Amino acid sequence: MLIQTRLTFRTAGRGSREITGEVAAQVRAAGIGCGIAQIFVQHTSCSLLLTENADPDVRRDLETLFGRIAPDGDPAYLHDAEGPDDMAAHARTLIAGASLTVPVAGARLLLGTWQGIYLWEHRTEAHDRNVVITVMGESA
Amino acid sequence: MLIQTRLTFRTAGRGSREITGEVAAQVRAAGIGCGIAQIFVQHTSCSLLLTENADPDVRRDLETLFGRIAPDGDPAYLHDAEGPDDMAAHARTLIAGASLTVPVAGARLLLGTWQGIYLWEHRTEAHDRNVVITVMGESA
Amino acid sequence: MLIQTRLTFRTAGRGSREITGEVAAQVRAAGIGCGIAQIFVQHTSCSLLLTENADPDVRRDLETLFGRIAPDGDPAYLHDAEGPDDMAAHARTLIAGASLTVPVAGARLLLGTWQGIYLWEHRTEAHDRNVVITVMGESA
Repeated sequence: MLIQTRLTFRTAGRGSREITGEVAAQVRAAGIGCGIAQIFVQHTSCSLLLTENADPDVRRDLETLFGRIAPDGDPAYLHDAEGPDDMAAHARTLIAGASLTVPVAGARLLLGTWQGIYLWEHRTEAHDRNVVITVMGESA
Repeated sequence: MLIQTRLTFRTAGRGSREITGEVAAQVRAAGIGCGIAQIFVQHTSCSLLLTENADPDVRRDLETLFGRIAPDGDPAYLHDAEGPDDMAAHARTLIAGASLTVPVAGARLLLGTWQGIYLWEHRTEAHDRNVVITVMGESA
Repeated sequence: MLIQTRLTFRTAGRGSREITGEVAAQVRAAGIGCGIAQIFVQHTSCSLLLTENADPDVRRDLETLFGRIAPDGDPAYLHDAEGPDDMAAHARTLIAGASLTVPVAGARLLLGTWQGIYLWEHRTEAHDRNVVITVMGESA
């Protein structure tokens, strides 16, 4: 059994917003008893983020660390056509990843207690971002 | 055909332990002729690690590099409720990844000769860690 | 429905080469109406790279950044049996990832307009690299 949907999310510029509820709703609707949910961002400057859902400071600290790993406006960048955040966004996307697979059981995501799924915008401007969710497995 | 299991591993604190054998045993038991094995850690402060299985110095050097990318007790961290390794562990988990998919054929993981799968504890203390393994595909 | 193939690519030493066309050809041949394509590199010193396909400077800048994150010949490395690029290649592989899953619909990869799939060689010498592609889903 297989259900595939594409959702579009408006981001507020750089930062992460939780999408666990939206992904869980697709999994529930698919009614998969046992299987996987594959989540995929169709962009090269925003990523998925699977991290702790309790303290928002975790995601602020991740911004700080990613700002060191892939700084905006680094003089070494050759690719800067869209501004100082352009190349930084591509690099952060690669490191965090645009593709995530989560197991499913009983029509629910098998996440740990403290795990949340976030859409992580790496550009400074707001964007519409497409996320493809594919739920595969055996019927409940 | 689909088999899903949850295994619990006791870690010895920061460091990696091989779990290739345990994952391979699930794949063998599933008897999948052709498909995929999806491995997922239900935590935000330990990750999976797919790396060379011959020289343990590789994994020591990865600790060194990750210690630079996400140092313990960095003064910039806002999130430090559980100690200096708390935020470092979240960041390392994100970069290494908590979710891994490996192809399967003939009821075996299609790993390369030098690839091993490790559970990588990023907290300094020992923990019990849950790993969900989902094997999907066609019967042998 | 499920199709699995192993392709071998000759790299030209450190750098990335696009393999989107080769992966898309497998997906087309599989004739999957809806599902996923799982791509897996059977090595610990080269990775997959999902990034922008328009400006090759993006991939040059990624080399620059990865050269800082995991430099060649770092004096802290214990593992250097195969030269100064040996450990750097293992670390870069881990960070970029050797496993990638992409949704499929209508026998096509559901990539965004600017997304390309690359095989990223991290060793300085040329190598033959095995890539396993597994396409799973419902018939078209």
